Amino acid sequence: MVLTAEQRADIEQRRGIWHRTRRPTVAAMEELLYTPMARLDHGFVRVVDYMGDDSAIVQAARVSYGTGTKRVSEDAGLIRYLMRHHHSSPFEMCDIKLHVKLPIFVARQWIRHRTASVNEYSARYSILDKEFYVPDVGDIAPQSRQNHQGRAQEPVSLETALRVQEILRRDAASCYGDYETMLDPEGLGVARELARINLTLGMYTQWYWKVNLHNFMHFLRLRADPHAQREIRVYAEAMMDILKAWVPLTAAAFEEYRLGARTFSATMLKVLRAALAGEEVCQESSGLSKREWQEMNALLDGHLEKRS
Amino acid sequence: MVLTAEQRADIEQRRGIWHRTRRPTVAAMEELLYTPMARLDHGFVRVVDYMGDDSAIVQAARVSYGTGTKRVSEDAGLIRYLMRHHHSSPFEMCDIKLHVKLPIFVARQWIRHRTASVNEYSARYSILDKEFYVPDVGDIAPQSRQNHQGRAQEPVSLETALRVQEILRRDAASCYGDYETMLDPEGLGVARELARINLTLGMYTQWYWKVNLHNFMHFLRLRADPHAQREIRVYAEAMMDILKAWVPLTAAAFEEYRLGARTFSATMLKVLRAALAGEEVCQESSGLSKREWQEMNALLDGHLEKRS
Amino acid sequence: MVLTAEQRADIEQRRGIWHRTRRPTVAAMEELLYTPMARLDHGFVRVVDYMGDDSAIVQAARVSYGTGTKRVSEDAGLIRYLMRHHHSSPFEMCDIKLHVKLPIFVARQWIRHRTASVNEYSARYSILDKEFYVPDVGDIAPQSRQNHQGRAQEPVSLETALRVQEILRRDAASCYGDYETMLDPEGLGVARELARINLTLGMYTQWYWKVNLHNFMHFLRLRADPHAQREIRVYAEAMMDILKAWVPLTAAAFEEYRLGARTFSATMLKVLRAALAGEEVCQESSGLSKREWQEMNALLDGHLEKRS
Amino acid sequence: MVLTAEQRADIEQRRGIWHRTRRPTVAAMEELLYTPMARLDHGFVRVVDYMGDDSAIVQAARVSYGTGTKRVSEDAGLIRYLMRHHHSSPFEMCDIKLHVKLPIFVARQWIRHRTASVNEYSARYSILDKEFYVPDVGDIAPQSRQNHQGRAQEPVSLETALRVQEILRRDAASCYGDYETMLDPEGLGVARELARINLTLGMYTQWYWKVNLHNFMHFLRLRADPHAQREIRVYAEAMMDILKAWVPLTAAAFEEYRLGARTFSATMLKVLRAALAGEEVCQESSGLSKREWQEMNALLDGHLEKRS
Repeated sequence: MVLTAEQRADIEQRRGIWHRTRRPTVAAMEELLYTPMARLDHGFVRVVDYMGDDSAIVQAARVSYGTGTKRVSEDAGLIRYLMRHHHSSPFEMCDIKLHVKLPIFVARQWIRHRTASVNEYSARYSILDKEFYVPDVGDIAPQSRQNHQGRAQEPVSLETALRVQEILRRDAASCYGDYETMLDPEGLGVARELARINLTLGMYTQWYWKVNLHNFMHFLRLRADPHAQREIRVYAEAMMDILKAWVPLTAAAFEEYRLGARTFSATMLKVLRAALAGEEVCQESSGLSKREWQEMNALLDGHLEKRS
Repeated sequence: MVLTAEQRADIEQRRGIWHRTRRPTVAAMEELLYTPMARLDHGFVRVVDYMGDDSAIVQAARVSYGTGTKRVSEDAGLIRYLMRHHHSSPFEMCDIKLHVKLPIFVARQWIRHRTASVNEYSARYSILDKEFYVPDVGDIAPQSRQNHQGRAQEPVSLETALRVQEILRRDAASCYGDYETMLDPEGLGVARELARINLTLGMYTQWYWKVNLHNFMHFLRLRADPHAQREIRVYAEAMMDILKAWVPLTAAAFEEYRLGARTFSATMLKVLRAALAGEEVCQESSGLSKREWQEMNALLDGHLEKRS
Repeated sequence: MVLTAEQRADIEQRRGIWHRTRRPTVAAMEELLYTPMARLDHGFVRVVDYMGDDSAIVQAARVSYGTGTKRVSEDAGLIRYLMRHHHSSPFEMCDIKLHVKLPIFVARQWIRHRTASVNEYSARYSILDKEFYVPDVGDIAPQSRQNHQGRAQEPVSLETALRVQEILRRDAASCYGDYETMLDPEGLGVARELARINLTLGMYTQWYWKVNLHNFMHFLRLRADPHAQREIRVYAEAMMDILKAWVPLTAAAFEEYRLGARTFSATMLKVLRAALAGEEVCQESSGLSKREWQEMNALLDGHLEKRS
Repeated sequence: MVLTAEQRADIEQRRGIWHRTRRPTVAAMEELLYTPMARLDHGFVRVVDYMGDDSAIVQAARVSYGTGTKRVSEDAGLIRYLMRHHHSSPFEMCDIKLHVKLPIFVARQWIRHRTASVNEYSARYSILDKEFYVPDVGDIAPQSRQNHQGRAQEPVSLETALRVQEILRRDAASCYGDYETMLDPEGLGVARELARINLTLGMYTQWYWKVNLHNFMHFLRLRADPHAQREIRVYAEAMMDILKAWVPLTAAAFEEYRLGARTFSATMLKVLRAALAGEEVCQESSGLSKREWQEMNALLDGHLEKRS
């Protein structure tokens, strides 16, 4: 991430201005506000605004008049209850607004979350900077054999990775050069909305993105997951840190009942009951597919198979 | 509106707590925060939280890094431009959270706005207070002859109005009495979710309601309109005042390009061109229905007909 | 449910008209179309239209050009995969449109599902029929001690139930009588939007309701659940039958991976691993609350406690 | 657009299968079903399914039981009324499902319409075909001086256009060649989700896209507009033809009250009244900006200025 001096100055000026407010305020978020957290080679996430805190969730759930005098332990209990029983509406009562700089192919995955508000930098109106994503050597890997839409854990050889980097860099730069040539009013002088067609999917774009806490967690659940593409996952990880700073009680409940939880199908529950009753269980008679059996067994430290 | 002493104390305590924040802050909203604005005989609207201000709309539209150094006049110009050209996404970047107490029949209209977040007081979990809406004498009117779903401008006679009030009051009170009888654990001892069936649509409920600025204005456009039922319109009017306190530049553009604006159909535009060209125009040859002609003529101070 | 002769004739006429179509068509749904399924004492659900079938889900997931030549077993496998991995977008590709007649207090719960389209019969425009819900004797029960927002399994005594029925019937009828009195143009002559305030929450309303298959299942998951109020659950049960007629492969996957499935929290997974490893487990040392422990133990046929 | 022989056969097979249905059916849509309408150099739109017709809108608005016996003229009148008064919910009762093949930069504009359901071809899972968009010579133009985000009416010189085409073609082909090199399992053997980063924004993607009629018209209003980028507008124009085939009464009302209509601001209405009253009006004293004045005057065939 390279910010211009002007951008840094704008951010610092902004951080220097303090106001008085009666609204719920989170000190850890005030500390984070406006400062970019670097992601990938040129990207960032920064918090631009937020509304509500853990206590606001409790207020909404209780439709209450005041701050309440509840102790933190009671708030935590109610938040765990709401999370566990999928009472999502109180979590919709908090909002977060981020400014994100990200490669276009990541933006294309991100935008599929329809419940957010977005203002994207327009390449019809403005000229994009010469910034494109090139993965680190250790992140360049072959197609995974397990996950048909992802990449393997093990990277390719260093030599191959360096060649891939070179290709990506050369093609993106060459396309960008021709973009400039096409735009140049002294040269070809083509409209921005046309010239930009020539850019690659690794180019960076940026947007303001606002979402409520419920949908923020839904995003994290899908995008902080190992099945998500690594390049969006690194953003989700930064956003997970923001979640913990913002609403620590909610973040803890989210880890307990969502991120760290697993769902067992009707058939899996039968297998589980049989195993706990001391019966022998095996994939063939379980009614589960091989894939389901393996995943369930792995989740249970292999104890299904050890028993059978 | 009658708040209990405890509720008043909760609100006052809340208003007494000030924090430091780097977030955009609106002094006029800080003044309003938490204090109920009375509506109808027992209802209210109060601002519980807000996010963003006029300047935040500009920041989002520009996807900018800092506060900017723009003068107010430039902000106003951009906001007018966004409003006029229906660029709605920057207005989605601000949010407002209200606590509303309102009769159930009003709540039923209100909830049709699907783009908000809601936490309603639960009559399955809690017992509703004995508060129901009885319209003022001057608000009791016959069915309108123009508006097939509304009431006439002129109220019924005082005598009739008093009888209507008496009926509404008596039936609501009688139903509430039986609600209590059914609930009484020493008496019939029926579950709350069943006993509440006996309540009338005039009973008050309450909720926390959160919406972004774009959808807030959409709500106001429909519900501050003369065609809206008076009982929801009085809430919309209070919310219009909140809009002006919150985002004055946006509120002005909203009045210019939405509330005070009118749309002319393709055929109306033809009529208009003809009239301005000095041609004679009349309903019969206009292609407009009688109703459309009347409305258009009224909107233009009768100048269409005067000319023809 | 009492349909008028005219309504029956309208429905029969409609059922008598057949068209040719190239669209995906489900014979079992054609059989159901337009015929009301009776619910509660005056309500119903009837299918008014539908779009798509199991195969359409597969087509969308594959973004394919034709019908495909896939065998049913392959379709079933893909649908199970999509359901299990929460790939919801292909299920959004099917839609269902229902005409529902239901008490207002049920409508108030139903409308909280914001992702549907709704056209409700307007009591500002039209006069409501004299139809209100009175629960059967066996459905009248006291507040539950376990479920703070529901009713107990055991009904109240027959004598109490009969008295409750009488109260509900008397109050609803009395309020309806006054509604008519207020509406009567020869009498008080009040606007419909005002007179209807006097009606109770047990009055029937009706609407057209359209939702996609993904959100339809979300509705069923929440409303066919034992924690849902019985009066909305009976509608969800009829809709569950519709689901099975419409998309049988999807319905089976839905039962396996949603309705019959259970989620274990991070802490529950630890307890499970310990139990399967043959270690002693108990609530006190588990990290689970008493309530969570009980629910988990019950779900596992008590085998957690038997072991410890 | 080049379909493979297999794709053509799939489509023809599909078109050959007819079913009986009781659902509302539109003959003109049955004729269109499944056949691609070519757009740009490799793209298309084709109707994959639809639900409802003009009559279904009327049924929903009336919450009615049967087909009704209404004449077409009454249906047309009600539909015009609903459109004019922005009663959008009956239009939500119809749905359309399209299969679209389109360049990625068009897809990025399209996806901003959040109220649709989408299944896109996955470049993490599959390999994209070598198809990219190159604009026709006559569509290559410089930046517009009026519309800051669009292109001018007049194209660039033929010589310049040919050079632009060559650049776009060469860069896209070169990037695609390197995409293949990176994918080749015998060569660099990189995962698909990484290799695709190298592709340009002109590459074609495809998706299934489903939307209700209300939001379909909202899409058309924004994307069939002259301010929309030409490359998405050509899709919107094909969809406008689909609209006319599908719901002709609604399409006519849409043209009258939306596409062909214009909104006048509060200040414009004042100017209009003055002009019709025979007063002199001019930009300087009007309260309108120069831009607004020009647009208004142009819309009224210059009659504002001729008079003043």
